[in-house]
Amino acid sequence: MKFLEDIRVGDKTELGRHTFTAEEIKSFAERFDPQPFHVDAAAAARSHFGGLVASGWHTGSICIRLLVQHRLREEDAMRARGEAVGRTGPSPGFRELKWVKPVHAGDTISFASEVIEKRAALSRPDKGLVLARNTGANQAGELVFSFISILFVDRRVTGG
Amino acid sequence: MKFLEDIRVGDKTELGRHTFTAEEIKSFAERFDPQPFHVDAAAAARSHFGGLVASGWHTGSICIRLLVQHRLREEDAMRARGEAVGRTGPSPGFRELKWVKPVHAGDTISFASEVIEKRAALSRPDKGLVLARNTGANQAGELVFSFISILFVDRRVTGG
Repeated sequence: MKFLEDIRVGDKTELGRHTFTAEEIKSFAERFDPQPFHVDAAAAARSHFGGLVASGWHTGSICIRLLVQHRLREEDAMRARGEAVGRTGPSPGFRELKWVKPVHAGDTISFASEVIEKRAALSRPDKGLVLARNTGANQAGELVFSFISILFVDRRVTGG
Repeated sequence: MKFLEDIRVGDKTELGRHTFTAEEIKSFAERFDPQPFHVDAAAAARSHFGGLVASGWHTGSICIRLLVQHRLREEDAMRARGEAVGRTGPSPGFRELKWVKPVHAGDTISFASEVIEKRAALSRPDKGLVLARNTGANQAGELVFSFISILFVDRRVTGG
């Protein structure tokens, strides 16, 4: 992870995109969210969604995967340049998770992350807190998913 | 789902318990949250966690599974008694998700859900909104996980 001092409010990262297939939607939901409109195409067609939709926790888990993969790639690149890499986390939680629109089978969601706040951690002089708004938009450009993550990150200069 | 009129603030439901094995922690995290302290026992031992811990999204997904399974069982029992069953959802999102303490490999987490607020939906005369605090506690009785879910539910009497 970058150090607190190297993270700027307004930094925006495109995390990549993911297509939610019917197979994958059903597979995730059978394990974690077995509601009819996530696991049964016929029942989903009769529901208020009109067809199979992804579990909101599936959408969230894919966003986390893309966030983590981006960070690991960034850390590899920093190490390749001989730079120090700060430790990440833990995360105390997150805020205001919104499933704005359904993610239908076949939808391709583009995820992004924007830093909206950073500050020193009151309890830990060696740490800072970074807040980011993480979003997903579908192939029509409509926002479908949003949450604010909170993460502890290392400070380069402690107690400064 | 029960109808809005049949749900009371203060209703508390024990959802069941789940043991997070090292195998399952790694399997979830390899797919969705491949941070070293979730997928690699040796790296986890060197981290601030001191050992393998579950992805927070894994903990959340298990909680959702237990919530949904409880609701489906409840609906089956209502149908067996000849009662009408209200439609569930959608959920617009949730609030204040907190990973209070780590979930270590081998921990058994007991999940529960308590209704903290209910009200008519301003936009939909046939619907109400129910807010519940969902929690997980480990085998030592320590709170490890908490979030507030928001769910649309059917009203038995509309426009009343």
